[in-house]
Amino acid sequence: MNKVAIFTSGGDAPGMNACIRAAVRGAIYHGIEICGIYRGYDGMIEGDIEPMNSYSVSNIIQKGGTILKSARSKEFMTKEGRQKAYDQLKKKGIEGLIAVGGDGTFTGAKVFFEEFGLPTVGAPGTIDNDLFGTDYTIGFDTAVNTALDAIDKIRDTANSHNRLFFVEVMGRDSGYIAIRSGIGGGAELVMVPETATSITEVITTLQEGWNRQKTSSIVVVAEGDEEGNAMEIAEKVKSQIHMKDVKVSILGHIQRGGSPSAQDRILASRLGLGALEGLMSGQKNVMAGIINDKLVYTSFEESIGKTKALNQDLIRMVKILSV
Amino acid sequence: MNKVAIFTSGGDAPGMNACIRAAVRGAIYHGIEICGIYRGYDGMIEGDIEPMNSYSVSNIIQKGGTILKSARSKEFMTKEGRQKAYDQLKKKGIEGLIAVGGDGTFTGAKVFFEEFGLPTVGAPGTIDNDLFGTDYTIGFDTAVNTALDAIDKIRDTANSHNRLFFVEVMGRDSGYIAIRSGIGGGAELVMVPETATSITEVITTLQEGWNRQKTSSIVVVAEGDEEGNAMEIAEKVKSQIHMKDVKVSILGHIQRGGSPSAQDRILASRLGLGALEGLMSGQKNVMAGIINDKLVYTSFEESIGKTKALNQDLIRMVKILSV
Amino acid sequence: MNKVAIFTSGGDAPGMNACIRAAVRGAIYHGIEICGIYRGYDGMIEGDIEPMNSYSVSNIIQKGGTILKSARSKEFMTKEGRQKAYDQLKKKGIEGLIAVGGDGTFTGAKVFFEEFGLPTVGAPGTIDNDLFGTDYTIGFDTAVNTALDAIDKIRDTANSHNRLFFVEVMGRDSGYIAIRSGIGGGAELVMVPETATSITEVITTLQEGWNRQKTSSIVVVAEGDEEGNAMEIAEKVKSQIHMKDVKVSILGHIQRGGSPSAQDRILASRLGLGALEGLMSGQKNVMAGIINDKLVYTSFEESIGKTKALNQDLIRMVKILSV
Amino acid sequence: MNKVAIFTSGGDAPGMNACIRAAVRGAIYHGIEICGIYRGYDGMIEGDIEPMNSYSVSNIIQKGGTILKSARSKEFMTKEGRQKAYDQLKKKGIEGLIAVGGDGTFTGAKVFFEEFGLPTVGAPGTIDNDLFGTDYTIGFDTAVNTALDAIDKIRDTANSHNRLFFVEVMGRDSGYIAIRSGIGGGAELVMVPETATSITEVITTLQEGWNRQKTSSIVVVAEGDEEGNAMEIAEKVKSQIHMKDVKVSILGHIQRGGSPSAQDRILASRLGLGALEGLMSGQKNVMAGIINDKLVYTSFEESIGKTKALNQDLIRMVKILSV
Repeated sequence: MNKVAIFTSGGDAPGMNACIRAAVRGAIYHGIEICGIYRGYDGMIEGDIEPMNSYSVSNIIQKGGTILKSARSKEFMTKEGRQKAYDQLKKKGIEGLIAVGGDGTFTGAKVFFEEFGLPTVGAPGTIDNDLFGTDYTIGFDTAVNTALDAIDKIRDTANSHNRLFFVEVMGRDSGYIAIRSGIGGGAELVMVPETATSITEVITTLQEGWNRQKTSSIVVVAEGDEEGNAMEIAEKVKSQIHMKDVKVSILGHIQRGGSPSAQDRILASRLGLGALEGLMSGQKNVMAGIINDKLVYTSFEESIGKTKALNQDLIRMVKILSV
Repeated sequence: MNKVAIFTSGGDAPGMNACIRAAVRGAIYHGIEICGIYRGYDGMIEGDIEPMNSYSVSNIIQKGGTILKSARSKEFMTKEGRQKAYDQLKKKGIEGLIAVGGDGTFTGAKVFFEEFGLPTVGAPGTIDNDLFGTDYTIGFDTAVNTALDAIDKIRDTANSHNRLFFVEVMGRDSGYIAIRSGIGGGAELVMVPETATSITEVITTLQEGWNRQKTSSIVVVAEGDEEGNAMEIAEKVKSQIHMKDVKVSILGHIQRGGSPSAQDRILASRLGLGALEGLMSGQKNVMAGIINDKLVYTSFEESIGKTKALNQDLIRMVKILSV
Repeated sequence: MNKVAIFTSGGDAPGMNACIRAAVRGAIYHGIEICGIYRGYDGMIEGDIEPMNSYSVSNIIQKGGTILKSARSKEFMTKEGRQKAYDQLKKKGIEGLIAVGGDGTFTGAKVFFEEFGLPTVGAPGTIDNDLFGTDYTIGFDTAVNTALDAIDKIRDTANSHNRLFFVEVMGRDSGYIAIRSGIGGGAELVMVPETATSITEVITTLQEGWNRQKTSSIVVVAEGDEEGNAMEIAEKVKSQIHMKDVKVSILGHIQRGGSPSAQDRILASRLGLGALEGLMSGQKNVMAGIINDKLVYTSFEESIGKTKALNQDLIRMVKILSV
Repeated sequence: MNKVAIFTSGGDAPGMNACIRAAVRGAIYHGIEICGIYRGYDGMIEGDIEPMNSYSVSNIIQKGGTILKSARSKEFMTKEGRQKAYDQLKKKGIEGLIAVGGDGTFTGAKVFFEEFGLPTVGAPGTIDNDLFGTDYTIGFDTAVNTALDAIDKIRDTANSHNRLFFVEVMGRDSGYIAIRSGIGGGAELVMVPETATSITEVITTLQEGWNRQKTSSIVVVAEGDEEGNAMEIAEKVKSQIHMKDVKVSILGHIQRGGSPSAQDRILASRLGLGALEGLMSGQKNVMAGIINDKLVYTSFEESIGKTKALNQDLIRMVKILSV
């Protein structure tokens, strides 16, 4: 492996820059040439590929976002698009790819590998933490802390006014961010897609709290919950309870940005280096991950296909801690 | 003046606790008894009034929210409600009031004073900064920094994806938070109620930026802007521009909470002490404020009625800085 | 187990309050009485023990420090002191203890158990992360992030002036905080007690960086490093290198405080509940910990006696990433 | 004025980048060429001068430090050094200078102007806030908030252990940072160079607090206090009081870095643009400042020579608030 390329794709996540930095510094350390591909698969198709050196990644470890930019490419989903991309890589002499992104990125990488056989190792960069093959994804810890910081602020105003707040957090179809920011924020209740919670249960739980003299309550809602988003759930609750001052807060895109936490900078560095060294040792069509503090490689197929269960201890804890 | 009472009312703001603390510590220093009234005018009507001592306000200077809670009282808007409130205060021997809140609070305080003549001095506690008689209100600096921190995070993701983001900030009918967080966040454009900006101007400004190779843009929108809120403005823009990936972020209630900034803790302390010492020196029916670093007292009538102009230098700067 | 008591001892750590809260809420949930012992073993000896209810632990999950206070007790190290402590507990009908602290706390707990047989389960509360039987201790993640935030600020000024900074972090005799904040902060070099680094190696490493055009450098030093503390190391280096502007920053006690991170609030909650439920299920003379995301109990003897190795991947990474 | 240059010199301060950005964007807006001089007066002497465009200052408004670097130049203090500097500027056709720094920078700028007559307008960039001619200097608000955040963390650990903490903050010979972070942090006492506080007074004040049942105390010390630095003061106090657990924390260089606060980004932008437009309108040998929210220009002589008094209200408040 003499020359590799790295790109970031899909939703951006804090720590992607630390991951790029580690892959680049690792390549330099091992005497391997490395290029950066801008704007994910779109840039790959257009040949927007530039060599990277140690200085290219100076002072980026603490930065959110990605210096290589990202995109969700429609063209890459076509055979012609992928052929163009492969031709661009061949033209530059790229022998291996490091793909930093989420399951959309790995779905594309898997198909690309099956078609052209170019060794590719992925690094899980997404705030959703919904990839199998790694305990945590790059960006997850930062997103949880961002959501938590927002919930702490909302608690100040909820307490001042004896209000009920529904706070919606990201996570697409999983409740990872919701359960952790919910527990950390002392939420009364956390609504996640993985466990069905009816509006009746919501009202009962809140009522019990009010009977115990709780004056304010926070309910954290994962955006993909089956009862709807926070706005819809709040409407359903308000229509049945008339006594409480109810507000909704949708945290939105602040959860995608910001300086990565310590955990994300270290995880991203381990995975960026792990993906690079994986390519060097013959890994292909796999995602690098950290499980129980050890670097492991899992096929793209499994990382996308299998589900990582939500920790049941955490779900149980929400109820006990809001007693 | 031997016995006074303090309360917080209206929307809560970071620094209210520091204000309460300064008034209480100031009262103790001067040998005056002081009580806290819970839940604003509602608590006053119900007689929810408790004595406060130095220990009551220990370790609250850094806390957001208000330990005395707040409420928007409907009953106080009636003559009967206000009579009940006055009777409660008389029963406790309260000779003076410190009212911490915004113009809703002072509107009530002014009427109450005209009816019963109980000396009242206000301290401007609201994130909106729309009160005349003080350069800044308690909570404004913190809210601006919270909005700014959110915009910094959104910029990370906007830059990664070459997006256009409309970010809505609080401020009711004024653009103070918008103009400052907009300049601080490097916004392309800031839409405030004080100056009309048509959708055509918005599109022209953005287009000029894209012609200058800007790939991502942030537009900060004050919630009271005449073109509508951020969601409505985004829809109008999207219907005319088809090229860009457009997102909306409504910062919401995080702007109300959080640990007060240095400036807010100091301002709040000066105004809490200033309100207390104002009562001692015979001030009544006025709001304490800081103008050009000096403590001044302005009638409730003027503080509510007169408008504080938005600094034109700041408005001019947005355009120049986004060149 | 009908009545238990909880205390915090040794150096305080962010998350101790979340731990207390989880133990109290868990006890209430299971119908068990719970008391709080103030000021660690000193308060136990003096009988400074108060019942706790759900309200006692409201709104403390986000607070640094410990509402039960802490102390390093000399009297508890004597047989007489421990006899007094036991008598106080017996008087209150305490049947089990939850001890939140570090190895000093568990050393005392172990001796106390051997003398009196009162079931005790510990929860590892210390920023040092040097306890065997848990991947992370309560407070560690927050301390690392605090150190990292400080290093990020120091980097701004180091870069502006082309300086060499030696930054000293806590950790007593281990390099956990140093290695993680060092990697996360992009340090040139990290000096930890676990691996000897001579002054010659320090100068060589820095020289290589300067030859590669690095203008500023940060060296993170664990307080227990064998070459001395940061001040001593800086002096040794300055005496051999005359070209560089060298500064020292000792982060100190800011690393002990602050609002706990998401990870610490969750870890603390799991361990507080885990200690309480451990007592209920017959555990004694053990420390609750989380290893590979599972709750485990390890004897106090092992938790104090055995060493947890520093992750060698991390040590290797420092060198590669500063290429 | 067709071509100007900007440089940053002396100790760096958060907001310097926002200042550079505003000057550059302002120059572009007015059709004026602008260059950046690297490493202050040293770079001026060496001719390290590069043209700047709008893209040079993208995404720097939120960054601490200075992209133009800074230095304390010995050579500029000599006539020969200054002659070389002038020749370099003449060679590049520079007609005006914007000097961002503190009094060391303006002392040099004043002499330079007197010798060569090249119009120079300064912008006060220093965390010390000790320049006459502006209410606040660029970087001051951020430094106060950084010190305050550190004091909040130290309070957590002080409260947990009933300790007395001496916290040293920057400010050189002035107590601006100390008085504000002290009030904001609820300090028992603040020791500043502007008012003599003997060790006896320190002990008396602390004793009174302990008599009122205060268990922990924080004393903020400005680094230039006449009784010595925090370490020396702590030693003097410890030698007279034997009962208390006394710790010292020297905040150090974290106060120089970090992302600038909202106030600093706006102040820096106003002053960067103000300096540029000052040059355009014929200002020379002056410093741009904001007094009572208005842009003003003050001679370098006065800005360095005159003293800005510490607000006596603030000093009085420390005593009252710690009652």
